[in-house]
Amino acid sequence: MDTSVLKSRKPTPSLKVVALAGGVGGAKLAQGLALSLSPAQLCVIVNSGDDFEYLGLTICPDLDTVTYTLANLANPETGWGIASDTFHCLANLEKLGEETWFRLGDRDLATHIYRTTRLRAGERLTVITQKISHNLGIEHTILPMCDTSCRTMVMTPQGEMDFQTYFVRYGWQPVIQGFRWEGIESACPSGEVLAALQAADLVVICPSNPFVSIDPILNLPGIKQIIHTKTTLAVSPIIGGEVVKGPAAKMFRELGIQPSALSVAEHYQGLLTGFILDSVDASLIEAVNALGMTACAMPTLMSGTAERVTVAQGVPQFGVQLLRA
Amino acid sequence: MDTSVLKSRKPTPSLKVVALAGGVGGAKLAQGLALSLSPAQLCVIVNSGDDFEYLGLTICPDLDTVTYTLANLANPETGWGIASDTFHCLANLEKLGEETWFRLGDRDLATHIYRTTRLRAGERLTVITQKISHNLGIEHTILPMCDTSCRTMVMTPQGEMDFQTYFVRYGWQPVIQGFRWEGIESACPSGEVLAALQAADLVVICPSNPFVSIDPILNLPGIKQIIHTKTTLAVSPIIGGEVVKGPAAKMFRELGIQPSALSVAEHYQGLLTGFILDSVDASLIEAVNALGMTACAMPTLMSGTAERVTVAQGVPQFGVQLLRA
Repeated sequence: MDTSVLKSRKPTPSLKVVALAGGVGGAKLAQGLALSLSPAQLCVIVNSGDDFEYLGLTICPDLDTVTYTLANLANPETGWGIASDTFHCLANLEKLGEETWFRLGDRDLATHIYRTTRLRAGERLTVITQKISHNLGIEHTILPMCDTSCRTMVMTPQGEMDFQTYFVRYGWQPVIQGFRWEGIESACPSGEVLAALQAADLVVICPSNPFVSIDPILNLPGIKQIIHTKTTLAVSPIIGGEVVKGPAAKMFRELGIQPSALSVAEHYQGLLTGFILDSVDASLIEAVNALGMTACAMPTLMSGTAERVTVAQGVPQFGVQLLRA
Repeated sequence: MDTSVLKSRKPTPSLKVVALAGGVGGAKLAQGLALSLSPAQLCVIVNSGDDFEYLGLTICPDLDTVTYTLANLANPETGWGIASDTFHCLANLEKLGEETWFRLGDRDLATHIYRTTRLRAGERLTVITQKISHNLGIEHTILPMCDTSCRTMVMTPQGEMDFQTYFVRYGWQPVIQGFRWEGIESACPSGEVLAALQAADLVVICPSNPFVSIDPILNLPGIKQIIHTKTTLAVSPIIGGEVVKGPAAKMFRELGIQPSALSVAEHYQGLLTGFILDSVDASLIEAVNALGMTACAMPTLMSGTAERVTVAQGVPQFGVQLLRA
């Protein structure tokens, strides 16, 4: 850690945090952080690698999960979509013979229609996302990782497929052989993403899937270079060798790696100043420290809002310790 | 009437009818005809002059009104949309700051999404319409008047505007000064429309708005030429000087014409073999006959399904009389 840089940093009340987030786990921590930090203090950069075109609409599942969660609209049972949404449009699309494996609720559809018409008119996804979050009453900044298309392709024995086909259509059952990012050659983070990272005192990698939620952000040109100059910590999405939700543990196994908080720390090795693992994984602290980062154990399960706030308060507190170290 | 042509025609059970229809009145008669005639006997050609782009979707209001009516899905109170539909998507679009003057229900949205994705993929509106009506269980043929865009523009003291802006957004309050069809230079009826008209024994102009529902069809190149060779009758949308629904009577007045069944007959003069006016307008029979067509008075109000069938049985009966005359 470059302590000369740290000395010039502002005290905690003006601590500037950038969170990198993907799906449900990331959204939960982002919500906790938003409840603990002022809008000027927090910016959430969201994976857009799982965006896709469906029924003529541009769907941004991770962006919407974070947005709906911060707007208190998220469906707590599914982790995606809007609470109490109906599916009348989808039911009629099914009657018309349309594929309906991606469950678009009627209220949720509004977001996709709004976004798609503006994208077609040439507006940037970043600007559209700001309008959506503003209109939904969100004060904190949510940024898609980029304005160009950079989409996660999943390599499986059944062939390569886009992420949503793997994740939703096939219920993440195909075996993972690797990943590819379509459009990465011409993709670049937006000016807003670069500026937010440059201005950050602390970068927090949320407990999202490292492969398909965080790596797409980290793989964008220039991102790792900025993060190397920052105090960066990650919160492990793996607790006791398993994940709360989603295919991260299964992916580690299929890639020949035993899923554990340590494996997550190794995955990010070289980028992190600190690492937060769950209290149940406290025995891994020494092994994580040996990777050249400072590990810290705390309860990280975020079932309800109160727990999200508790975890989210612990994260910047640890971050400030790292900054002052 | 060219009686030499008529002698070769098939008897009533195989009478082939083409109905030209626009909005709600046209849909009601089309439904009655569909309940009285077999799928092989009836083809409904629908105005697409009021189609428009809204929220990135291609909306075909007349086509949908006819389709939903024939599928027994239509909302009987509004005349448009699907019965018992919800408006959750629209409510959320409103929260996002979107214009929501065109009331798209959640179930209705499925049709527009389905159609728009297929149009973007290069499918013809005719083919898409057949798929929609087939998937909704409709056995009779519904054809849009053309596959290209030929849109009704309304000239008013407030300037020229597209039909839905005039009709829905401004609640048909602007004063009508005239009409223009955008795209008419390059528009042509589909092969299916021409073939259906060529094969027809009887052409029925439904009680739709003559200016904005029927004229767009008649104005397409080649349509009038075929109709001139056919036994064609129109059912007056004006009953006792007023319309059941919509701006037809108001349009007549604003164009300096007293609205009446006679005015409708005059509007179509030269095209019609026969003309059906409501029993309340029986006093106009002689005046209509004097225009060179055969007038017939019968009850034409079609509130319920039973009345639609009664009217729809009377229409081809009169048509057969004309054919045999």
